[in-house]
Amino acid sequence: MKIGSLISRLEEIAPPDLAEEFDDGRIGLIVKGAPEITKIATALDPTPYVIGRAIEEGAQMLVTHHTLIWEPVNSINEDLAHQLRLLLGGRISLYSMHTNYDNAQGGVNDVLARLIGLEGTECFYGGRAGKVPESTLEAFAAHVSMVLGCAAEYVGGNDTVVKRVALVAGSGFRLALEGARVNNIDVILSSELKHDVIRGRGKVSLVSAPHYYTEAPAMKVLAERLCEVVPAVFIDDPPKIRMVNAIERP
Amino acid sequence: MKIGSLISRLEEIAPPDLAEEFDDGRIGLIVKGAPEITKIATALDPTPYVIGRAIEEGAQMLVTHHTLIWEPVNSINEDLAHQLRLLLGGRISLYSMHTNYDNAQGGVNDVLARLIGLEGTECFYGGRAGKVPESTLEAFAAHVSMVLGCAAEYVGGNDTVVKRVALVAGSGFRLALEGARVNNIDVILSSELKHDVIRGRGKVSLVSAPHYYTEAPAMKVLAERLCEVVPAVFIDDPPKIRMVNAIERP
Amino acid sequence: MKIGSLISRLEEIAPPDLAEEFDDGRIGLIVKGAPEITKIATALDPTPYVIGRAIEEGAQMLVTHHTLIWEPVNSINEDLAHQLRLLLGGRISLYSMHTNYDNAQGGVNDVLARLIGLEGTECFYGGRAGKVPESTLEAFAAHVSMVLGCAAEYVGGNDTVVKRVALVAGSGFRLALEGARVNNIDVILSSELKHDVIRGRGKVSLVSAPHYYTEAPAMKVLAERLCEVVPAVFIDDPPKIRMVNAIERP
Amino acid sequence: MKIGSLISRLEEIAPPDLAEEFDDGRIGLIVKGAPEITKIATALDPTPYVIGRAIEEGAQMLVTHHTLIWEPVNSINEDLAHQLRLLLGGRISLYSMHTNYDNAQGGVNDVLARLIGLEGTECFYGGRAGKVPESTLEAFAAHVSMVLGCAAEYVGGNDTVVKRVALVAGSGFRLALEGARVNNIDVILSSELKHDVIRGRGKVSLVSAPHYYTEAPAMKVLAERLCEVVPAVFIDDPPKIRMVNAIERP
Amino acid sequence: MKIGSLISRLEEIAPPDLAEEFDDGRIGLIVKGAPEITKIATALDPTPYVIGRAIEEGAQMLVTHHTLIWEPVNSINEDLAHQLRLLLGGRISLYSMHTNYDNAQGGVNDVLARLIGLEGTECFYGGRAGKVPESTLEAFAAHVSMVLGCAAEYVGGNDTVVKRVALVAGSGFRLALEGARVNNIDVILSSELKHDVIRGRGKVSLVSAPHYYTEAPAMKVLAERLCEVVPAVFIDDPPKIRMVNAIERP
Amino acid sequence: MKIGSLISRLEEIAPPDLAEEFDDGRIGLIVKGAPEITKIATALDPTPYVIGRAIEEGAQMLVTHHTLIWEPVNSINEDLAHQLRLLLGGRISLYSMHTNYDNAQGGVNDVLARLIGLEGTECFYGGRAGKVPESTLEAFAAHVSMVLGCAAEYVGGNDTVVKRVALVAGSGFRLALEGARVNNIDVILSSELKHDVIRGRGKVSLVSAPHYYTEAPAMKVLAERLCEVVPAVFIDDPPKIRMVNAIERP
Repeated sequence: MKIGSLISRLEEIAPPDLAEEFDDGRIGLIVKGAPEITKIATALDPTPYVIGRAIEEGAQMLVTHHTLIWEPVNSINEDLAHQLRLLLGGRISLYSMHTNYDNAQGGVNDVLARLIGLEGTECFYGGRAGKVPESTLEAFAAHVSMVLGCAAEYVGGNDTVVKRVALVAGSGFRLALEGARVNNIDVILSSELKHDVIRGRGKVSLVSAPHYYTEAPAMKVLAERLCEVVPAVFIDDPPKIRMVNAIERP
Repeated sequence: MKIGSLISRLEEIAPPDLAEEFDDGRIGLIVKGAPEITKIATALDPTPYVIGRAIEEGAQMLVTHHTLIWEPVNSINEDLAHQLRLLLGGRISLYSMHTNYDNAQGGVNDVLARLIGLEGTECFYGGRAGKVPESTLEAFAAHVSMVLGCAAEYVGGNDTVVKRVALVAGSGFRLALEGARVNNIDVILSSELKHDVIRGRGKVSLVSAPHYYTEAPAMKVLAERLCEVVPAVFIDDPPKIRMVNAIERP
Repeated sequence: MKIGSLISRLEEIAPPDLAEEFDDGRIGLIVKGAPEITKIATALDPTPYVIGRAIEEGAQMLVTHHTLIWEPVNSINEDLAHQLRLLLGGRISLYSMHTNYDNAQGGVNDVLARLIGLEGTECFYGGRAGKVPESTLEAFAAHVSMVLGCAAEYVGGNDTVVKRVALVAGSGFRLALEGARVNNIDVILSSELKHDVIRGRGKVSLVSAPHYYTEAPAMKVLAERLCEVVPAVFIDDPPKIRMVNAIERP
Repeated sequence: MKIGSLISRLEEIAPPDLAEEFDDGRIGLIVKGAPEITKIATALDPTPYVIGRAIEEGAQMLVTHHTLIWEPVNSINEDLAHQLRLLLGGRISLYSMHTNYDNAQGGVNDVLARLIGLEGTECFYGGRAGKVPESTLEAFAAHVSMVLGCAAEYVGGNDTVVKRVALVAGSGFRLALEGARVNNIDVILSSELKHDVIRGRGKVSLVSAPHYYTEAPAMKVLAERLCEVVPAVFIDDPPKIRMVNAIERP
Repeated sequence: MKIGSLISRLEEIAPPDLAEEFDDGRIGLIVKGAPEITKIATALDPTPYVIGRAIEEGAQMLVTHHTLIWEPVNSINEDLAHQLRLLLGGRISLYSMHTNYDNAQGGVNDVLARLIGLEGTECFYGGRAGKVPESTLEAFAAHVSMVLGCAAEYVGGNDTVVKRVALVAGSGFRLALEGARVNNIDVILSSELKHDVIRGRGKVSLVSAPHYYTEAPAMKVLAERLCEVVPAVFIDDPPKIRMVNAIERP
Repeated sequence: MKIGSLISRLEEIAPPDLAEEFDDGRIGLIVKGAPEITKIATALDPTPYVIGRAIEEGAQMLVTHHTLIWEPVNSINEDLAHQLRLLLGGRISLYSMHTNYDNAQGGVNDVLARLIGLEGTECFYGGRAGKVPESTLEAFAAHVSMVLGCAAEYVGGNDTVVKRVALVAGSGFRLALEGARVNNIDVILSSELKHDVIRGRGKVSLVSAPHYYTEAPAMKVLAERLCEVVPAVFIDDPPKIRMVNAIERP
């Protein structure tokens, strides 16, 4: 399949004009490789491991959620040189879909909402809001941990009843907080919980899962959807975060 | 003691001109209460609990690391109204020392460095760098967890040898990362570890403790130092962050 | 009456989207007090006298034209602390309508135009323009002085014939001057006449009344209109400006 | 005398590097006429009347406090065309000294301070501060009116004792207010008193004289000083501001 | 004819709202002279020679493509004083049409396109694109040189076939380059060819003629069109650029 | 020789802190290749031809005046991909010295001044000024053409006597013009002469040589100087600009 046709399909899935303004230059075709695509790989980040695996898989295009170069550069540092050597050497294209895929119907936030089991889902401050069966905060956090397959942190009152949930895949607590406060949201689910958000949460409870686990599922779903037009494979590469607690007893 | 004399003492401990430029308007006397100080309270944040306790303790001044109003306001929302009602009603002054106390000799970063046992400490990109006895990354993370009294996350290779440490109290990974990479730092200790920092860490390992536990010790030390001039008490109010892990077996 | 219903009524009178862009954050509910309103007070400025009188009158809401905090603040100076102590202590809401009420139909400029007796009134550079019965400049200035109940300054040629008038409540000479020059306006009526406006007036005459007297009438009218939904009182608090002229003989 | 030598003398009197930054482009030689100067004229503003009189006086240079073009222009409107036709036709130079003359020793503020009889004069927020013999506010305002030869407005408590005075020639209330509040100034003397300054004055009293009368004396003094090097004449052209008060009885 | 009616006609030819945003203040009536127009002159620049000739021709208005004052001024330097003395002394108006005439139908770019013989002309990145009879690059450059009456520089491969041409009157290579690359343009014709454009041209050839010769034809055409309403004359004043080449042999 | 030692030598020749502020990120090591340098190449631009030749020459580092990436990028277009493939594939470093080398003693401007034969050379608005033996403008332009080995354009009066010359390597007419006018410079030598500079030149004559020929000599000299520490070669790659003049007869 021609790269142009494939890009048309990718733009249907994640229309570029859905991207936030700050994503100018950060979405679309970032590096252009061979013109004919017989296999495609998807992943959250273009890490050297991911690029290497994509080439081993025989892919001519890698689609990631996070782009190769966040802040625009005038020079090529060693990490970037390493990634470019792999990409240019392997003649593999890199295509990035970020906030356009976050916001798209069936995109990153919708995949997360489906995993969590949100009902009556609607758009909400860069993410989604909806309802879950009534539960305690502990139970809801345990449910999140289970369906995402990772540990989860949570903050909130002991008597919190969770019913109305807002979620933002990636780092979105601050984005959703003010809206959550005025819309009687019980809990926000997002990543990278910061101290000032905890202090400013008011009556809103917070559940935080690692950034990777809130977004990677949507890249896996993307590979499944692309299989309709070209063989596609999802490459999993979660960061290895370990935890130690010297003060906790079993 | 007159409030003016006390402020002179506070400015010796945390000289205002050490503050970062973005802290303009965020340090110094934020709310002015009674002119005569017989007791002082210190804390990390001016939460309603902290203000209430300070008044119960009979303090006429509360010194916090984080200020009352981060983004300047034209109006008074409900949380701020609640805090102001307590402060103005109790005629208690609020004084804030932020990056000036971070940067000061004997300030927030130095207190953290002392707790960790850093040797040959020097200033380093908004924090401190120094050496610790050679250890594995696991052992170093466990040590951090123990001396700070909290859980710690860490990311790094299995064969990492920790010797040269950079630390930044509060949220400072991004601040220190580039410097750490070019200065052969083995590990950065800070708070609020984000996905993009993990992806861009290169060979630098990362240990993350909750924001509160990296900074609150310095407010406790401040109370001890102020006791020389006026009775002082530290008020502890850590955020209650809980954790659940559905996929881990004992 | 619920505060929410009252605010809906206030937004009908002075729709927020009529406000100039620089008024962002300076209009609407500035401080929130008790939820149930049985009496309302209006005034030009939230001076301590005005707030005190509003509380004495038993009002739960004070509506002013000028807001409490013009430039956003990070700290609470003594004057503001005094005002907030009164407002928060009295549990009285403060609501501000500024350029939205200036621009609204029946708002500040329209009330002034009606007082002056403008006919064929239309919108004009932040104010209103229209016609008055033909008169000399002296006679028109005397008329202004009489209907507003204050002294008036004026600048213009001896043979000026006043017929077409532009007016801007508050400080608006500079705003209206260029438009007045190209639209054959005979005289501008506004406040706070500055030297550079006098020098740049070309053939346009100028009549200046104190800021307070051009805007306060509209706050009085507001109280009258609000009486339809809840008892309302206007609190008058003009600044005491005195005048001395050592060189003028009676 | 060569124009170059005269400019050197003018720059001694009002050194260009004393000008505020916003005066970039607004001071110095604005229009260049004949190279030989046998007579000079000074005035506050380059009005057509002033330019015409200067030419009649046989001057080759006109020195004004306010410049010809405040906001930079791309085109020449009718008023400016009229002034330029006079200047270019008369081959008369225009030289402007603004904030550099305000700030200079013996400049605009110092001339005003001497007229008022300030003692122990020192620089103060764009103007001067000093002491006057103790008096009531009414008496001080009458004194200002008499020595400047114009009406004066004033605002302040009935029991104000005037001793410490701050003055700013031209429009300077806002500039001096905060400093006056923290330095226990009794009264500020300046021009163009605005409503928000009155509301924010705290305990500071305010005396306001028309802009022209606070600055023109310094242009008269300038003519006297220049006579030492070349014949010089001051051209007086005060704006004609009249006053009417329908509510006051004799 | 009244100046107002003439300006209406000029605004039909070059509608002001077609101007680029950076032309704010640089188009329209720049200096206003006599109100009655019996003759008009057009030229590319308001040089002293051009203004002098326009007055000799008895014109009351001069229309130029480049305005009198590019960067807004606070003062009148000697060159500008010279031009203004001529304009104000001759009571001749100056009217400027710049990017509005560039972009207008039948305007600067269209006149150039017609001269070059472009077919199927359409708007293209601040200029026009279209087709010419297939030729070599050398032949196309010679054609440009001949029809414009000036030397031309060109850069491109020896085997370039010219068919699709983009042109921008004045200095427009950078403006058109990116668009030309993605739209398979064979050659860009414009002025003031810079080194970085040559280096970044990819496969696009470049032909450069002096700025004057790409734009002056449109001012000549303007004079012809205006003759329908008032006698009009074009004044030609090309810059005298000479060339020397020590290394070339005949 | 280690790359670090070589860079130290390059920084002696062109100290980074001499660079203009806009060159942030555009000078120094742009792409890092092999750590050991046995041969170095210099050139004006990193064109594919230049990179290819440098690799053929066995160089591990290429030093250019113009950098690889002018505006910072988030993605890699085809031209850049081509250059990076060559650089990364050849493991050759790219080092850029731009305005720091322009301004350095013995740098780009000094090399040009020496070629022209300037005497009493001093720094002058981004370039150099000095004297040449008195000549006509024609003769001076012919001299420039001869010593630089390229055609030259010139603009100026027939009776111009050239004695005081200002020169700016690269594109510097606008930079030097105002200074040249007030310092009685007879002629400016630079590149990329634009129409507005010709119109605003006053009495200053202008000689323009192609950008490449004013700067490339300094890169040749650089190769000669570097030979002292490591074998070095200059790679010449002038743009092929051709000229046609249909209206000139032999």
